[in-house]
This record gives sequence, structure tokens and C-alpha cells, in this order.
Amino acid sequence: MRLVVVGATGAVGTVMMDILEERDFPADEIIPVASPRSAGRKLDYQDRQLEVVALDESVFDGADLALFDVPDELSAQWAPVAVRQGAIAIDNSGAFRMDDDVPLVVPEVNPRAVEQRPRGIIASPNCTTLAMVVPLAALHRAAGVERLVLASYQAASGAGRPGSDELWDQTEVAAKNPDDVREGKAGRILEGGEYFVHPIAMNVVPRCGSVKEDGYTSEELKLGNETRKIMDLPDLEVTATCVRVPVVVGHGVAVHARFGRAIDVDEARSLLSSAPGVELVDDLSADVYPTPLEAAGKDACFVGRIRRDLHDERALAFFCVADNLRKGAALNTVQVAELLVR
Amino acid sequence: MRLVVVGATGAVGTVMMDILEERDFPADEIIPVASPRSAGRKLDYQDRQLEVVALDESVFDGADLALFDVPDELSAQWAPVAVRQGAIAIDNSGAFRMDDDVPLVVPEVNPRAVEQRPRGIIASPNCTTLAMVVPLAALHRAAGVERLVLASYQAASGAGRPGSDELWDQTEVAAKNPDDVREGKAGRILEGGEYFVHPIAMNVVPRCGSVKEDGYTSEELKLGNETRKIMDLPDLEVTATCVRVPVVVGHGVAVHARFGRAIDVDEARSLLSSAPGVELVDDLSADVYPTPLEAAGKDACFVGRIRRDLHDERALAFFCVADNLRKGAALNTVQVAELLVR
Repeated sequence: MRLVVVGATGAVGTVMMDILEERDFPADEIIPVASPRSAGRKLDYQDRQLEVVALDESVFDGADLALFDVPDELSAQWAPVAVRQGAIAIDNSGAFRMDDDVPLVVPEVNPRAVEQRPRGIIASPNCTTLAMVVPLAALHRAAGVERLVLASYQAASGAGRPGSDELWDQTEVAAKNPDDVREGKAGRILEGGEYFVHPIAMNVVPRCGSVKEDGYTSEELKLGNETRKIMDLPDLEVTATCVRVPVVVGHGVAVHARFGRAIDVDEARSLLSSAPGVELVDDLSADVYPTPLEAAGKDACFVGRIRRDLHDERALAFFCVADNLRKGAALNTVQVAELLVR
Repeated sequence: MRLVVVGATGAVGTVMMDILEERDFPADEIIPVASPRSAGRKLDYQDRQLEVVALDESVFDGADLALFDVPDELSAQWAPVAVRQGAIAIDNSGAFRMDDDVPLVVPEVNPRAVEQRPRGIIASPNCTTLAMVVPLAALHRAAGVERLVLASYQAASGAGRPGSDELWDQTEVAAKNPDDVREGKAGRILEGGEYFVHPIAMNVVPRCGSVKEDGYTSEELKLGNETRKIMDLPDLEVTATCVRVPVVVGHGVAVHARFGRAIDVDEARSLLSSAPGVELVDDLSADVYPTPLEAAGKDACFVGRIRRDLHDERALAFFCVADNLRKGAALNTVQVAELLVR
């Protein structure tokens, strides 16, 4: 079993290497691949060191599996190359997610979708979709979800390492200007950057991803399109507002979900407490609910603040958080790979 | 015209004094009142200095108007005292907002409600309600709103000065620990505090206010109850998730609103661009949308990211932001006072 990891030194790729190591992924050989700039670097892996090699057709020679976490255009170019060389490609970019011939897989939700992969490629969903689709699917299996209204609280690292660097640099500027910050005048000293355009420290920015049709952003449309595909619910109605917040790791989603039948909080808690991949943290009066700081570094999709819509017995509101680099990206990709080697 | 300002040295009270000064409020005498601890302090006001006096029955002698920004229990105790001494009390706490004999007033929405005040008290709404009710009312007048699903992004100063101090102190700790923060491990170095329980720097906390029935928080229920009262829409359905974010000033609300008839983006923009108290900032492709950092220190309710629900021609999604200390509190209170002295 020969496993290639393309983008092994990026924000998600680094976590992917950690997760492969932690879970003792059953590969005889693991080949970390990155840009020529990172080639030659040595990565510690269990009791050995792995040398990073530059991306090139030959890295896929004899590979069984190739995991990709690189920008869309690089995945679009190189995943088919990996397949041509005989590997199954598992891609974490947006390049193939909506391709009818590429399954979009969350192991806790639609594991058997990996079996139908006409292009030899399997896609892993967007990090925000992953933060909420695992608990949502557990509720759906019982009550049939019909309508979602979502608002996200997305971490800076969702835009990769440059995103979290931008938040950090601005946080340092803020920390040096106590008077402006404490008086709510941080706008005087913080400037927008390359990734978030507006300042992201001490601010929230209601734009994630690129500008798409009808006034929506790419992230907002992905939440609908990917959720419909993963859950095989072409008629599921989804309206999302995606907002970047000054958090390094951990995407939150405020979910309002309407189901096909009445569902109460006790039933929802019972379903979620036994759902694989979900951790129920729901005791408001004890201040137990999900937060990104507590979800960071963990594997589960955390869910809490579950309550019945006061006007609609078929609707629930709840709040989900997952580590956008782990379950939202690297972990899901590795879990998909595990489905193939079981 | 004798005006008393109770709580004049608090986070909102300080802004209230600034706004009275900026707007040259037509009072012959302004009496800033605070706790005995602040009594004797001198506040600059236009070309003179005002001495802070300790709260006591005599401060209301001969007063025409008394503006209150103090905790609920202090308002409950002292606003009736002010009325007994002959003043009209305008209260910014939650003590009287849902009292049937107290109007709840937003000058751009229901100005004439000030006329019916059997208890001599007028209430000003919660800061999060104010961030969205002004633009919402402008759309409602044309299309009749029926259903709201809301998710908030609430600034730390919504919990008063101790709230923003807690955010600042934690931001300083974060800034001294670059490695933990940059790696998304700020949870190792940040601890919860007195106001937000969980760390608020580099985090979001899905609880604002106190714990109420059915799993909701006080802020979530206020958004429904106050909006129904202000808009005189007892059947308006509102479901809210209120979340604290690491921002000093400026509350954001992601709004999903369903109306009684179809409404499109152009019509909504046209209504909002001419609505008093609203500033339309809506050009996603030019990165023009509301953010708290840009709303801080300004008077308007900013609204942008307006788009049609892709599944429902009667629903719109949009994002609102207002300065929670100004329009969300001090400014609205002063505007109500202006209605009375016009």
C-alpha cells in the first residue's frame, strides 16, 4: 500500500500527516508531496523521517491512494494524473465536488458512495458543510429534513495558513493599541489584508469565498449544493449566510432545520448522543455548548443549544462546531481513505 | 428643561453624554448621576463641566426627563421614583420593556407610541433588536413580515465595560503567546472569565444573556418579544440564536425574513436606501457590506448582503450591523427624548 499526500506541508496537509500518524494508517509507504519550494524537507512520522518531494507525474508511480489538499486548479490538473497512474484520488478541494461522476463522501453519512467512482476520484466536502452535516444527517434519518436556514461563524484558517497569519498579524497590532481597542475604535488602527479585504481581528466579515450569482458567495452555495449531494436530497432547501470571525481554528454553524414530522429536543438529543462522529455538549444552564476554542484539535462534530422552534413543532435550532482543519478537511479525507483499505 | 442621566459614567452612559452634547440636546440643565463611587467626578460638556452626583431621590427634583442606563433592578427601583418626582423616565434596561403600560419605542419605527405612557415610563429596546428592527420595519411597511430566523454576532461591550475589559485582557494574553494562537491552540492559554464563562478572545460563545425557558437565552427571547411589540405584530414568528463574538463594539445579525408577498432585491434596496436611520452598504463584488468595525461610532443601522431566498420568492436574507452602544442603546434613548421635546 503506497499512499501519496499532495499538499503535505500546507495548513490542512500538516494536519493530514498528523492524523495518518495518530491513526496508524495501514500504508507501507507514505510519500509527502508539495511545491518545489518545500521539496527536501524532512517530516517526522512515527519512528522515521519522510522526505518531501516536489509534485510531478512520477510521484504517483505505483501509488494506490493519493490524498490531495491543494487549490482547486492544482487538484483539477493533478488528481486525474494520479488516477492515470493507477491510484484512487481523494480530493479535498472544490474542483470535483459537484461532478456527477465523483462521489462526495462523509463516512458517517454516505460511506457506500465511495463504491461508485467512475473517474477514480472521491471528493471530500467543504469545511463548513462538514461542521453541520454529520449531526444533521443523524436527525434526518429519523425525521426527514426539508429546509435549512444557516449562519456560519468561520475561522480564519478556513482560508489556509495565509488566512490565520492575517488574523494573527492584526491581533498583534490590536494588542499594541489598547486605547483604540478598548474604546471600540480598532477601526482606526486595523487595516484590511489580502485575504479578508476588511480587517478580521476584532471584527466579523460577512463574506467567505468568492462572489457567485444572485448575491451569494461560493461558501453559501456550497453549503446547499454539497449538503444536497451528500444526503442525496435534491429537494432540500438551504439558505446560508457565511461570516468570517476572528477565530483561528473551528467553524461554527447556527442551524435552523425544519423536518418532515414533529421532533422534540429529547428525541434529538437521544439521536445525537448515539450518532457516530457527533459529540453532544448541550447543557445551557451549566454553560455546556460547543465553542471553536474547545473543538480545536478534536475529531468530533460538536452540537448543542438544541431547542424547539417556538412557532413550529417540526423545526429545531441548534449550534454545531467542528475543527475545520480536522473533521472539516484532513480527518474526513483520511476517514474516506480508511473506507477503501478496510 | 432639566434632564437627568442616570448611569452617566457607564459604557452606554458615557456615550449618552457624548450624544447629548453632539446633538446639542435642548436642556437648560443636565445632571449626570452615577453610583457614590463616581460622585464628584467632573465631565466636560460643551463649554462647561458637569459634576456627577450620587443617585438619590433628590436628583429628580424638578426634572422633566430622566434617561436611565443602569442594570434592570436599579431601573425597576428608580424609574418610578423619577416619575413620582414629575419626570418622564426613558429606560434602557430590560425592566419595563414588556410591561403593557410602558411603550417600547424606536423613533424610526413607532414614534407615536411615546404618547401612550400610563406609567410615565418609556422603554428603549435591547441592542440586538435595535441592530435589525429599523431596516426590517422599512421592508415590513411594504411587504408585511411574517417570519424571522436570526443569528447574531454580538460584541463584548453588549455586556457593558466589564465585558469589553474581559475581551481585552484575553486578547493581551493571546498576543503574548504567538505559537499557541497561530497553531489554533489558544485554548491552552486562554481561560474563561466572569462575564462570558468561556474564553471570548479568539472564540465565539453561543450564549448571550441569562438562561430562560425551553433552552433559549434571554437575548434570544427578547429579539422575538421586543420586535413583536415595537412593530405591533403579535403573530410575528421569530427564532434566534445569539452568539458572542470577539468584537468590542458593533452587533451584527444575519436575518432571514419571510414576507406576506414576493419581494425582490431591487425593491428591498430601494426601500432601504430611503429609510430613515438605515444606511445601505450592499455591493458584494466590491466588498461593500456591513462590518462592526466600520459601524462603530456611527449612528445608522447598516444593511447589506441582501439576496433572495433561492427557494422562496417571499423570503430575503440580509446582514445588519449597528453600534450597540449608540443606535443599540444611547442614541435610541436620546432620540426618544427628542421626540418628547420637539
